[in-house]
Amino acid sequence: MKQITIGMFGFGNVGHGLYDVLEKIQSKNVRIKTICIKHPEKDRGVVANFTNNPDDIFNDPEINLIAELIDNADEAYTIVKRALNQHIPVVSGNKKMLAHHLNELIELQKQTNTALLYDASACGSIPVIRNLEEYYDNDLLVSVKGILNGSSNFILSKIFNESMDYPKALKLAQDLGFAESNPTLDIDGYDSVFKLIIITIHAFGCYVAPEDIFTYGISSMNDYDIKFAHEKERRIKLVAHVEKLESGEIIMSVMPHLISRNKYIYSVEDEFNGVVIKGQFYYKQFMFGRGAGGHPTGSAVLSDITACLYDYKYEYKKLNSDHKVKHTNNHDVRIYLRYSTDSDLALFSFKEIYERYDSRDNKYVVGLISLADLLRINEEIRHRKLFLSVFPYD
Amino acid sequence: MKQITIGMFGFGNVGHGLYDVLEKIQSKNVRIKTICIKHPEKDRGVVANFTNNPDDIFNDPEINLIAELIDNADEAYTIVKRALNQHIPVVSGNKKMLAHHLNELIELQKQTNTALLYDASACGSIPVIRNLEEYYDNDLLVSVKGILNGSSNFILSKIFNESMDYPKALKLAQDLGFAESNPTLDIDGYDSVFKLIIITIHAFGCYVAPEDIFTYGISSMNDYDIKFAHEKERRIKLVAHVEKLESGEIIMSVMPHLISRNKYIYSVEDEFNGVVIKGQFYYKQFMFGRGAGGHPTGSAVLSDITACLYDYKYEYKKLNSDHKVKHTNNHDVRIYLRYSTDSDLALFSFKEIYERYDSRDNKYVVGLISLADLLRINEEIRHRKLFLSVFPYD
Repeated sequence: MKQITIGMFGFGNVGHGLYDVLEKIQSKNVRIKTICIKHPEKDRGVVANFTNNPDDIFNDPEINLIAELIDNADEAYTIVKRALNQHIPVVSGNKKMLAHHLNELIELQKQTNTALLYDASACGSIPVIRNLEEYYDNDLLVSVKGILNGSSNFILSKIFNESMDYPKALKLAQDLGFAESNPTLDIDGYDSVFKLIIITIHAFGCYVAPEDIFTYGISSMNDYDIKFAHEKERRIKLVAHVEKLESGEIIMSVMPHLISRNKYIYSVEDEFNGVVIKGQFYYKQFMFGRGAGGHPTGSAVLSDITACLYDYKYEYKKLNSDHKVKHTNNHDVRIYLRYSTDSDLALFSFKEIYERYDSRDNKYVVGLISLADLLRINEEIRHRKLFLSVFPYD
Repeated sequence: MKQITIGMFGFGNVGHGLYDVLEKIQSKNVRIKTICIKHPEKDRGVVANFTNNPDDIFNDPEINLIAELIDNADEAYTIVKRALNQHIPVVSGNKKMLAHHLNELIELQKQTNTALLYDASACGSIPVIRNLEEYYDNDLLVSVKGILNGSSNFILSKIFNESMDYPKALKLAQDLGFAESNPTLDIDGYDSVFKLIIITIHAFGCYVAPEDIFTYGISSMNDYDIKFAHEKERRIKLVAHVEKLESGEIIMSVMPHLISRNKYIYSVEDEFNGVVIKGQFYYKQFMFGRGAGGHPTGSAVLSDITACLYDYKYEYKKLNSDHKVKHTNNHDVRIYLRYSTDSDLALFSFKEIYERYDSRDNKYVVGLISLADLLRINEEIRHRKLFLSVFPYD
């Protein structure tokens, strides 16, 4: 049996989680030899060989796998590239880095014939990438829709189930270690869109850059929005969504959705993630699991590591397929928009308005608008007192 | 790209489903060349090369994959063995055959270096085997628990949600094509136990024969049982369960469970299957999808077929692991038992009785009994007017 000797970068929540999991299972095949961190002098409460010099990992001939588990996307990119160029298989948990560089890194994997695995990056402990890659590979996929961010979902759960206010819920999420070092990544949907980009490569074989996807989070949600959801007997969830239209093009977005009770993701609570994969023939699959936290994610990283033990590589079947899929934003969605002034409303090129409410304290409309029009005003609306959410017909 | 030319045995619900799916996706790599059935003269409403001579498949050098999709377990066994011996990869959907012969067929795969894939057999469209094999492979698994039979679950859903009576619900399940050709396989838990055996090989690397697993279904359930469930605010579900005890041994059973509302499988309705995989570190994963029906299962068979296209084989990692796991029935479960006479009750070696109800029309107890004691009276209780269900503590 092949031995895996790991050089690890980073010792945050996930890195520590991986360390704990390996301690606990006492694997005979897998061990962490060296951990590279910024401040090796700091006491981490564990016995390990810490360094701040990457060469201690890269120049060690015994190390045959790199686990890249740091926060900084640029540094992560450097590490992953160097590992592949040195023909050392590498496991990464950095969604931001992957979402920006996956195209290039897929090419580099091919050139170097070296594996880069990152199932842990996309949905914590749910093996969504591997399933898309290995199982849902018959060109029958219609859509992938899910709650991909544990901390924003945790906050929404506390608000909708326990009537907790927003700042208190955010604080609690951070205290419990669910929120990333930069909470706006979670709350404003960027973490979700990075994961969606990774998922879309494997689901539809199409790389789309973050700036081409309308991404909107929950940070400006207020009590009126919560009240509107209650009135409609729905809950607000932050949903990442990719869908293949009948034209063959795909649409993508990360936005709050008003979800009705009969939907699977309505019941995804707290820090959990849930993904609904819809196919032409098997209808819907739902996968559900812990999306955040050191041990679940550490355990997911270990699954990637043991896949390396068996020389597993993603085959990027869809990306290499003849049916090339294109991304479009020319698609209309029905949204709920709560706004403050007429100039806010004027920003939005609604094609149709179905519902309109206006009082001194609160104004909203329900109307139809294209993703392209939303993307166009993406920057502008972030400085205004407003909130929007998809309001699906079902 | 490798071409797959299929010789198919059987053209029932699943076979027809696979045929439809292939028609629809117009695969360039996969085609069905010959279909072997008992009565090729019967009009099937499709254009295909039908035969009743297996040699037309086995002696055709162009055919490089066999899809075994017939009902009869003995004939399925003959087909699969012959395919492996002729070094032709084979995909099978026959759980009964697999549950009885998997040990031998794993050995034969090794000897012949030829793949036998059967993900479609275990949970319809949910890729549970492949996930256990590929992802949850770090010896951290605690339990796999699920609703593995679509038609019995459909019946229970109709009874609990729509107050339909039992015979009407069964008839409806059969009319909709969810029930197998022999409904007792579904209703009495045998279909579920076959799937559980297959799952357990991949989850814990341990083969256990059907006769060593206490298997009890829902055919004797009556209105008193339904009333009891309602009183306790639970629903009755037919649950297959394998769990690793702290001793390292595993327990297995297929029995009705009184499931409380906060459990994932409480909400698995109609013909759907749902599986909860519990691990030491990632807590719980829940997978959910269509467990029955021609198209979902046909699509799952196609996933096995395209896996062959990529030369995929199960590695049986757990089975080949050094940590050998043993099966035991020395484990106590709390059950609800509705019975008719004192002699019924006397059959059960309860270690403790927590609740007892006795009226002229209805008698029940809630008590603690070992799986071994249940297995011992397995045959005897089938001829009595009684019903039992696990009554979990939570």
